[in-house]
Amino acid sequence: MNKMKPVLAIDLGGTNIKSAVLLPDGRIIYFKNYPTPADKGPREVVKKILFAIRDTLGKTDLEVFRLSGIAIAAAGILDAKNGVVTSSPSLTGWHNVPLRDMIVGELGVDICLINDASAAALGEYRFGAGRGTGNLVYLTVSTGIGGGIIIDGNLYNGTDGCAGEIGHMIIEAEGPQCNCGNFGCLEILASGTAMANEAKRRISRNETSCISEFAGGNSDNITAEIVALAAKQGDSLACEVINRAAYYLGVGLANVVNIFNPEVIIIGGGVSKMGDMLLRPARKVVKQRAFRLPVRTARIVRSRLGDKAGIIGAAIYLVGR
Amino acid sequence: MNKMKPVLAIDLGGTNIKSAVLLPDGRIIYFKNYPTPADKGPREVVKKILFAIRDTLGKTDLEVFRLSGIAIAAAGILDAKNGVVTSSPSLTGWHNVPLRDMIVGELGVDICLINDASAAALGEYRFGAGRGTGNLVYLTVSTGIGGGIIIDGNLYNGTDGCAGEIGHMIIEAEGPQCNCGNFGCLEILASGTAMANEAKRRISRNETSCISEFAGGNSDNITAEIVALAAKQGDSLACEVINRAAYYLGVGLANVVNIFNPEVIIIGGGVSKMGDMLLRPARKVVKQRAFRLPVRTARIVRSRLGDKAGIIGAAIYLVGR
Repeated sequence: MNKMKPVLAIDLGGTNIKSAVLLPDGRIIYFKNYPTPADKGPREVVKKILFAIRDTLGKTDLEVFRLSGIAIAAAGILDAKNGVVTSSPSLTGWHNVPLRDMIVGELGVDICLINDASAAALGEYRFGAGRGTGNLVYLTVSTGIGGGIIIDGNLYNGTDGCAGEIGHMIIEAEGPQCNCGNFGCLEILASGTAMANEAKRRISRNETSCISEFAGGNSDNITAEIVALAAKQGDSLACEVINRAAYYLGVGLANVVNIFNPEVIIIGGGVSKMGDMLLRPARKVVKQRAFRLPVRTARIVRSRLGDKAGIIGAAIYLVGR
Repeated sequence: MNKMKPVLAIDLGGTNIKSAVLLPDGRIIYFKNYPTPADKGPREVVKKILFAIRDTLGKTDLEVFRLSGIAIAAAGILDAKNGVVTSSPSLTGWHNVPLRDMIVGELGVDICLINDASAAALGEYRFGAGRGTGNLVYLTVSTGIGGGIIIDGNLYNGTDGCAGEIGHMIIEAEGPQCNCGNFGCLEILASGTAMANEAKRRISRNETSCISEFAGGNSDNITAEIVALAAKQGDSLACEVINRAAYYLGVGLANVVNIFNPEVIIIGGGVSKMGDMLLRPARKVVKQRAFRLPVRTARIVRSRLGDKAGIIGAAIYLVGR
């Protein structure tokens, strides 16, 4: 494999398929978003990925054989060895989908598959908020919570390639049921979805909040973004909802600190845009609940690469294999 | 350092100081237990360690300069870089004790310090239940719960040398307070102490159980061992106490499976002697609560080296540095 060739990277999420062409130094020379037809099932989504790849090649005047390969970062529990998405909370109907072979069969090019949060961890480690460190944990907080682990400068994938599911760490043994089927996961207590659900629950009990107004009177429209907007205006219900999620996030981060003793924990994903409104109370919980020595060491910072972290990390992963 | 020289290894626990001489291939050629004067504070304990070392050298007719070095495995949060025990739940009054320098100052020999559960993980990986694997997590379940992590064949120590505190992973955010100050840790819910406390609590409410009889009518005498003995005789309260601890252990192990996707999880420590009485219900919880792919991979087995795992691992750590 010629390591100087460009990489085509895809980041497959529940909302968007991001497609990009990158140079081996991490520079993105082309980037485009395509909506994911998530509700139409795996076959249609794979068709859309193939469309995105061909469209990207066309727009950049590249041919497949001039690429190092194609890297796909995907949300879900991946059997990375076999290129299979075994399940995915954000993609309806994805059970044991042989994504790699489905793409290879159409394009005849080397494909590598990596979990999206693991890819983002690698991206942040090499070119983002984790540069110069050795041990880091990356958490993406958005509709769900994903995780990626860098140990002594290497991505830790685990035995099957599905390590790092920090969002599905149980922090409340008898807690509410998560999308994954388990109970009391970090994700169901601290994600954007958790915030939206908690706001909906409280508003349905007729508590007053300007969230209802921002959502146009329809509670189905309530999102973490709207909650954040209301909190910025001083809405007390919104602030409480965010503090509750921040508390649970802090509990999860305290566990990460005690288990990994990392140099840095990087928080990405849409919800991380709340910044200190979320991270300040979370850091306080970490300080109260983890051991002093590793707390002193672990910086908890926001992602630097934002929504490009997965794309960049997937490309690094492919080139570094 | 001559790697063919023997190693003197010490395992410092709250009850015993184990002292041994080992060959580089892991064979123990001398082993002795000394009671830890834990309640007398660090100075007396260090004196006892020095006594154990000198006694061991005397009994084996060795002199310090004929050793590769002295390896000390210790319970607690270690600042391994600086050779300091920053805190230890099983050793009263140990706060920032510069253990390494205190011993070096007396003996003038190279000392390395390692967490006891990390040492045991290394021992099991090289010569015990983890032979032939790459990624494993070791848990010692006794009065407390400690952890050690092997990643791609190497001990993962974290940035300061205090990674692996899996016993202080919060699994019940609002749970009871742990010895470490935190709330709802795995240790306070699933350790031997947790079992003894739960049995005491229920018996103090006048529930009937043969545990009282085994404890000679004095509830202060109740230990996890006595609970296990009663459970073996079919005592229903004892069985419930063990199942409750096994449930929480299973929750903790489910988290380990989702985060690490390990090949094997090895359970050591005194409480692990309960065997399937504890591990069968714990495995069931793991199967229910972790993702299918990593559950299928992760074997959950008992330690093979038993109470020698720490000694053996400490020696391996010293020689391999």
